[in-house]
Amino acid sequence: MSALRDRFQKEADESMQEYTSSLHFDRRLYRQDIAASIAHARMLARQRIISGEEAESIGQGLTSIREEIESGQFEFDTSLEDIHMNVEGRLYERIGDVAGKLHTARSRNDQVATAMRLYAKEAISETVTRLKDLQAALLDLAEANRAVILPGYTHLQRAQPVLLAHHLLAYFEMLQRDVERFGDCLERVDVLPLGSGALAGLPYQVDRDFVAKELGFSQISRNSMDAVSDRDFVIEYIAAGSMAMMHVSRLAEEIILWSSAEFGFIEIDDAYATTSSIMPQKKNPDVAELARGKTGSVYGDLMSILTTMKSLPLAYNRDLQDDKQSFFRTVDTVHSTLEIFTGMMRTIKVNSERTGQAAGESYTLATDVADYLVGKGMPFREAHGVVARLVRYAVEQERSLQDITLSEYRQFSSLFDEDLQSINVESSVAARDVPGGTAPRRVDEALREAREVINE
Amino acid sequence: MSALRDRFQKEADESMQEYTSSLHFDRRLYRQDIAASIAHARMLARQRIISGEEAESIGQGLTSIREEIESGQFEFDTSLEDIHMNVEGRLYERIGDVAGKLHTARSRNDQVATAMRLYAKEAISETVTRLKDLQAALLDLAEANRAVILPGYTHLQRAQPVLLAHHLLAYFEMLQRDVERFGDCLERVDVLPLGSGALAGLPYQVDRDFVAKELGFSQISRNSMDAVSDRDFVIEYIAAGSMAMMHVSRLAEEIILWSSAEFGFIEIDDAYATTSSIMPQKKNPDVAELARGKTGSVYGDLMSILTTMKSLPLAYNRDLQDDKQSFFRTVDTVHSTLEIFTGMMRTIKVNSERTGQAAGESYTLATDVADYLVGKGMPFREAHGVVARLVRYAVEQERSLQDITLSEYRQFSSLFDEDLQSINVESSVAARDVPGGTAPRRVDEALREAREVINE
Amino acid sequence: MSALRDRFQKEADESMQEYTSSLHFDRRLYRQDIAASIAHARMLARQRIISGEEAESIGQGLTSIREEIESGQFEFDTSLEDIHMNVEGRLYERIGDVAGKLHTARSRNDQVATAMRLYAKEAISETVTRLKDLQAALLDLAEANRAVILPGYTHLQRAQPVLLAHHLLAYFEMLQRDVERFGDCLERVDVLPLGSGALAGLPYQVDRDFVAKELGFSQISRNSMDAVSDRDFVIEYIAAGSMAMMHVSRLAEEIILWSSAEFGFIEIDDAYATTSSIMPQKKNPDVAELARGKTGSVYGDLMSILTTMKSLPLAYNRDLQDDKQSFFRTVDTVHSTLEIFTGMMRTIKVNSERTGQAAGESYTLATDVADYLVGKGMPFREAHGVVARLVRYAVEQERSLQDITLSEYRQFSSLFDEDLQSINVESSVAARDVPGGTAPRRVDEALREAREVINE
Amino acid sequence: MSALRDRFQKEADESMQEYTSSLHFDRRLYRQDIAASIAHARMLARQRIISGEEAESIGQGLTSIREEIESGQFEFDTSLEDIHMNVEGRLYERIGDVAGKLHTARSRNDQVATAMRLYAKEAISETVTRLKDLQAALLDLAEANRAVILPGYTHLQRAQPVLLAHHLLAYFEMLQRDVERFGDCLERVDVLPLGSGALAGLPYQVDRDFVAKELGFSQISRNSMDAVSDRDFVIEYIAAGSMAMMHVSRLAEEIILWSSAEFGFIEIDDAYATTSSIMPQKKNPDVAELARGKTGSVYGDLMSILTTMKSLPLAYNRDLQDDKQSFFRTVDTVHSTLEIFTGMMRTIKVNSERTGQAAGESYTLATDVADYLVGKGMPFREAHGVVARLVRYAVEQERSLQDITLSEYRQFSSLFDEDLQSINVESSVAARDVPGGTAPRRVDEALREAREVINE
Repeated sequence: MSALRDRFQKEADESMQEYTSSLHFDRRLYRQDIAASIAHARMLARQRIISGEEAESIGQGLTSIREEIESGQFEFDTSLEDIHMNVEGRLYERIGDVAGKLHTARSRNDQVATAMRLYAKEAISETVTRLKDLQAALLDLAEANRAVILPGYTHLQRAQPVLLAHHLLAYFEMLQRDVERFGDCLERVDVLPLGSGALAGLPYQVDRDFVAKELGFSQISRNSMDAVSDRDFVIEYIAAGSMAMMHVSRLAEEIILWSSAEFGFIEIDDAYATTSSIMPQKKNPDVAELARGKTGSVYGDLMSILTTMKSLPLAYNRDLQDDKQSFFRTVDTVHSTLEIFTGMMRTIKVNSERTGQAAGESYTLATDVADYLVGKGMPFREAHGVVARLVRYAVEQERSLQDITLSEYRQFSSLFDEDLQSINVESSVAARDVPGGTAPRRVDEALREAREVINE
Repeated sequence: MSALRDRFQKEADESMQEYTSSLHFDRRLYRQDIAASIAHARMLARQRIISGEEAESIGQGLTSIREEIESGQFEFDTSLEDIHMNVEGRLYERIGDVAGKLHTARSRNDQVATAMRLYAKEAISETVTRLKDLQAALLDLAEANRAVILPGYTHLQRAQPVLLAHHLLAYFEMLQRDVERFGDCLERVDVLPLGSGALAGLPYQVDRDFVAKELGFSQISRNSMDAVSDRDFVIEYIAAGSMAMMHVSRLAEEIILWSSAEFGFIEIDDAYATTSSIMPQKKNPDVAELARGKTGSVYGDLMSILTTMKSLPLAYNRDLQDDKQSFFRTVDTVHSTLEIFTGMMRTIKVNSERTGQAAGESYTLATDVADYLVGKGMPFREAHGVVARLVRYAVEQERSLQDITLSEYRQFSSLFDEDLQSINVESSVAARDVPGGTAPRRVDEALREAREVINE
Repeated sequence: MSALRDRFQKEADESMQEYTSSLHFDRRLYRQDIAASIAHARMLARQRIISGEEAESIGQGLTSIREEIESGQFEFDTSLEDIHMNVEGRLYERIGDVAGKLHTARSRNDQVATAMRLYAKEAISETVTRLKDLQAALLDLAEANRAVILPGYTHLQRAQPVLLAHHLLAYFEMLQRDVERFGDCLERVDVLPLGSGALAGLPYQVDRDFVAKELGFSQISRNSMDAVSDRDFVIEYIAAGSMAMMHVSRLAEEIILWSSAEFGFIEIDDAYATTSSIMPQKKNPDVAELARGKTGSVYGDLMSILTTMKSLPLAYNRDLQDDKQSFFRTVDTVHSTLEIFTGMMRTIKVNSERTGQAAGESYTLATDVADYLVGKGMPFREAHGVVARLVRYAVEQERSLQDITLSEYRQFSSLFDEDLQSINVESSVAARDVPGGTAPRRVDEALREAREVINE
Repeated sequence: MSALRDRFQKEADESMQEYTSSLHFDRRLYRQDIAASIAHARMLARQRIISGEEAESIGQGLTSIREEIESGQFEFDTSLEDIHMNVEGRLYERIGDVAGKLHTARSRNDQVATAMRLYAKEAISETVTRLKDLQAALLDLAEANRAVILPGYTHLQRAQPVLLAHHLLAYFEMLQRDVERFGDCLERVDVLPLGSGALAGLPYQVDRDFVAKELGFSQISRNSMDAVSDRDFVIEYIAAGSMAMMHVSRLAEEIILWSSAEFGFIEIDDAYATTSSIMPQKKNPDVAELARGKTGSVYGDLMSILTTMKSLPLAYNRDLQDDKQSFFRTVDTVHSTLEIFTGMMRTIKVNSERTGQAAGESYTLATDVADYLVGKGMPFREAHGVVARLVRYAVEQERSLQDITLSEYRQFSSLFDEDLQSINVESSVAARDVPGGTAPRRVDEALREAREVINE
């Protein structure tokens, strides 16, 4: 009879063993599980619930098991349903019956929750590092192309000229909010559930604060039923990850657009491009496309865990087992996507000639012309109407605003004068000289501040 | 330089190789890929695009590669990004340069779509079989407990007595709609995309109908751009799978409720139960809980693929690569869940004493009393009011409807008479003698018809 | 005391009345509710459960209530929680106590399900009409631009030249699958639940087939518990609607791209464009953007209803009330989006000069050059490599394939010869002369067949 | 010609006006829009961009428009697409052409974003108040039932006895995390976007800090392109709302279970119950069911907005218009659900006799028996096995652990002795005397601390 089945008359059905097993995905928690067990054993000894020798023996056994796993020598037993039972089973083999004392004053419910939280803390730390790496890559690209102007778009129609650096700083801001959100999430992850038992607490004089300190948690959980059934931190990570992926998907979309023949604003490095099995000329931005696509997968994981948690009565239910797959998948996707985007962004080449030319076409200076009229005393709404009719006139004649003569301009408003000539792409950008605006001196300042933020 | 990178000056970045690789999940398509390639090569020879010997050599090479894979001797090369390139790479090793002719008149875009559709056809067939197995298990359980009555619920409040068989037949109906939906999906899957090339069709005199026939497709695709970028069939499968899992989650919820100490209606077999690491008395319905939880994961896959497909311009985009993981995961979840539910349902024991007792308590016969008054000529809405007041009277006195004397009844309506005594659980069930109702003869009929449906 | 509260000692809390009310959204079901009630009353009379006069009176009362609602004279009473209670309440006012007989042999559970299914049947019919309208608009646009060539794209990189008509036909195919899916859904909607009672069937000799015939249902439900708690048809509609919106979102994305200054392939009509409150030059494709955005809302409705239905025990639970808002919202969004897209597509102007020029640039004929070498006997994979190197050579020199001299070509392969000159955009398109390919004669055939399909 | 259409030759198509209009849902932003406009006008005057009289006139005009709206006298013009154009249009009517100066140095993009953020700040404040109200109701219920013991469950199987107060405190903790999450969200909402213009900043010497101060924002946005296209705060609110609703759905599930005849742990007040149109005896917990169902709707809104935002290139795109419906719907659902739950929880009656009895049945003290053996020196895993066999023995004989004699106990282990008798429900609860455990003194302490938290 397998472990823990003394209560039953039968073995588990084989298909059930497979269906309920989580070993193939939770084995990545081995390190966290072992660290928590060692801390738990130390505490048990300190509280004289087990002896110092027993704790020592358990600690050595667990340490050597961790080494076995890391060196690839550990033989996982798929008939034991998870990593926790695998480690415990092996501990019996190594140190004998004293292994049975490790599960004193502990349930798998608080044990699993503890391993998950340890893992989540490390994951968040890694996520923040990678977000900052991508931020740094964006700043480097911005600084290397400090003077590049491109059309800013709304509705994918050219709107007003902006600095490329300004455009890239918009992504810096998005990623900065991501950094903050993961930081907020960390505070709620950083709570030790161990000591909650199965659901009601423990009938032993455990020292939860000691274990928290050993494992680096800054708080202990305040309610045992909540502690074993709470997966908010998983949802919160995936929600923050969904937003981060959404931001990356927006950047990915622009990389794809800008790499197209029609835009031609950038060229991604050959090292980040693929070709076609049939069309020999193709240079495809697959990395950006995959990242865009994988955004859907992270959204799916969010929906998955939210749906799973809905309407579950207290306390632990086995439904919760599925939190791990969603969580690990999202962590992996977010990390690999941020890493490869960092590499790709670092090697992008900007075609500043093309962007500069585009920035001045398509009547992108029309707002400046309207603002010119406002400067001469016309209310903005009226100026908007004048320039709208002027653009319509130019469109019908297939001429640019620059090609229209002053006398033609004056047919639309007598306020137009020679100084109209001073309006150009550079003047347009320089004029947006407000905090957060695209004027070069504001962008310089923003770059400096951004650099400080990631160096914090 | 790797295959297909002659257009570039650099190798792919290593992290990009890893990021873009689909080998770890699309390798399950090897059989479909090889079958499609053999059919393609045969067609090329038939159309004299390659020679008969070349086709023969390709066919033998591919067959032996399939055997290598199935015997575990194939060495997957992770530097080749997918199963298709792995098979092709190995084909070169086995038969030399003639392997290069296989990719004549074919693109990876139509090649992948073909393998996916072959896989989907097989998956649907398997899904339908497993749905029918679960239907059969439900019928067996219903027939074995033909006379068992339990309370029917609305709002989880006891409503009216019903036959357990009637209750189980409700699930039969749900699963039958699932069977139909997968069947509808199959019709749209059963279309050969091969021959669409990269997106525009092919400049070769290919015979698409021949390939379709060889591979067992009943139609060929009508538009090449649609054919290479269409993933409706994946979405449709996952949508149908979401509904099937939703149905199972409802049954799972009832299994969990019925297994609780409070309900005590059934006992699941020890072979499908687990216990606790800390509480020795526990017998937990983990299978039902896991199935309920995994419903969220299938919903997540649906959201994932829908999100990924949104707003993609024609034709193929690399985002599509992620369709496979969602699809395969859903197929696996649906199949394993249906299988294990079939086993679990087959071994459930019903506590008919408990269900029968519950069916008669909690005023479940109140509607019958109202209908009794309607039979005496009172409008239903008025009868409803009379019985509502009567129930309130009984509740306040903590008495059952059976405990109320006729003279007390008559204080609520003079229409009450001796024949009131004939109302009981059995009469209540028998009275619902309409098509679709719970009367025993109707349920017998429904069981017979259901049995015929799954034997079709 | 309000209707139906005789069982309680208290009125409902006011906030609860508001929270549980569905009147503000289910009032749109008034027509279906009244039709079903009239049919039900007729059947009751036919079965002598009520008298002919009573049925007559009920029928007349209901008809006049419908007229009141349609003429705007009906005063909705928000203290009655839904449209069904509003109609019934008004019926009492108009015909007195005989109104109470209408609810004989009926529960609100089967009543609501019947109204919803009647509504769904009409909605599907309307949806299919609008899908066909959009298909027709696409065919008209295709036929009006029969000779227009544009670049086909993969990865948003120019791939191979295709006919615009071919490109538009890809969307025709997607919409055709949508038509089929709604048709499949209709079969499962077309089932009468009335006669199921609250959950167990009815203790009256009702004639369900008669009611089905009166209301135009082709089947009656086979299990009463399933009938009152089944919302598969709502999910299935929203799932089909999600796919239809996904298809529209892809078209929307292309409309947006093609309208950009960079592509410049089309111009949407002023009647479907908006401008900016600040930038007078803007002409924005808001309709396409909104449709793309609203795709998310329909996906959200799908997730909403799937989540709500998960794990609900049989039979009816009040959670189900929320099905209506998701359903109605999706119906409205799908209908309005299809309608406005039809209008927008009908008025689009194509800039064929621009598309034609783009079709020949960016090495889009490279595959044709590779196929040329295959025609001379080179295996495709080898030809692919030769042309890849050739493209790289051209890219480095910033020359097009047309600018490379024959002698330069021959440095890459001696198979190149004078006949290379015959490769151009038109020859490329014409060469893809396979079923489903972009060759003009195939596209003509496809247009003819498509026209037949929508005229069916 | 309508406002802003001078650039076009045609009016907007009527169906397009309807499709693009947001007036029916964004009119709720009138107060925020007007407040922001007044602050903007004041700033323009302060910076001498307009005159003091002009600002005064604009301010008075706007104030009177707000009064018109609040008194129901404002006539909304549906041909003007949103609330902002409605207010501006009316301002022209009231104060003439000077109204046109209000849109100086402002775009609708930063105007809408500002109104949304003002609204979101107020919404969050209200949400937090309502969360705290529900927390207070839970504490009151807990304190009023301080000594009530019920079975704690895992897998919906009775596990170990716990205090009801402890159980309710688990929900207190969940809601507390919700409070924190909304607080974190508030910090990212509290940023003024006004001054960003359409996307690039403004060519006017605006004083953004002044406007921020006037409107109560603690920061101004740092990048104009990000500021007009960022909807992270909407997503973050809905994500936090999804988790809050998930918590409520868990409580709702327990209310439903506990109200069932089978559990019978509580009775909800008649004021929060409904009955059935057909079954006169029914008392249904509709509020809990609706709340559970509406959880799906909030999840759907989350999916909707995430999907909509995916892959949007910078800066503003019209897709964003759909953020409002999802956001407002979620705010309304969260607020009404929290409010009604507070009322319902305050009026619940607990059946402590029933809960107490249940707490001692079904071998809930088995863990205590195992811990007893550990106390005598047996390793926990071994003790677990002994008690598992003992439970199996008792189950087979249909006896409780209390019914087993000491001599029978000793057949399983000689460590059992007379002191075994001291194990009972009360001792079990009292023994879990660790921080976060269910021992009465720990729960008292937790109640005190919780009360302090909400009084902060």
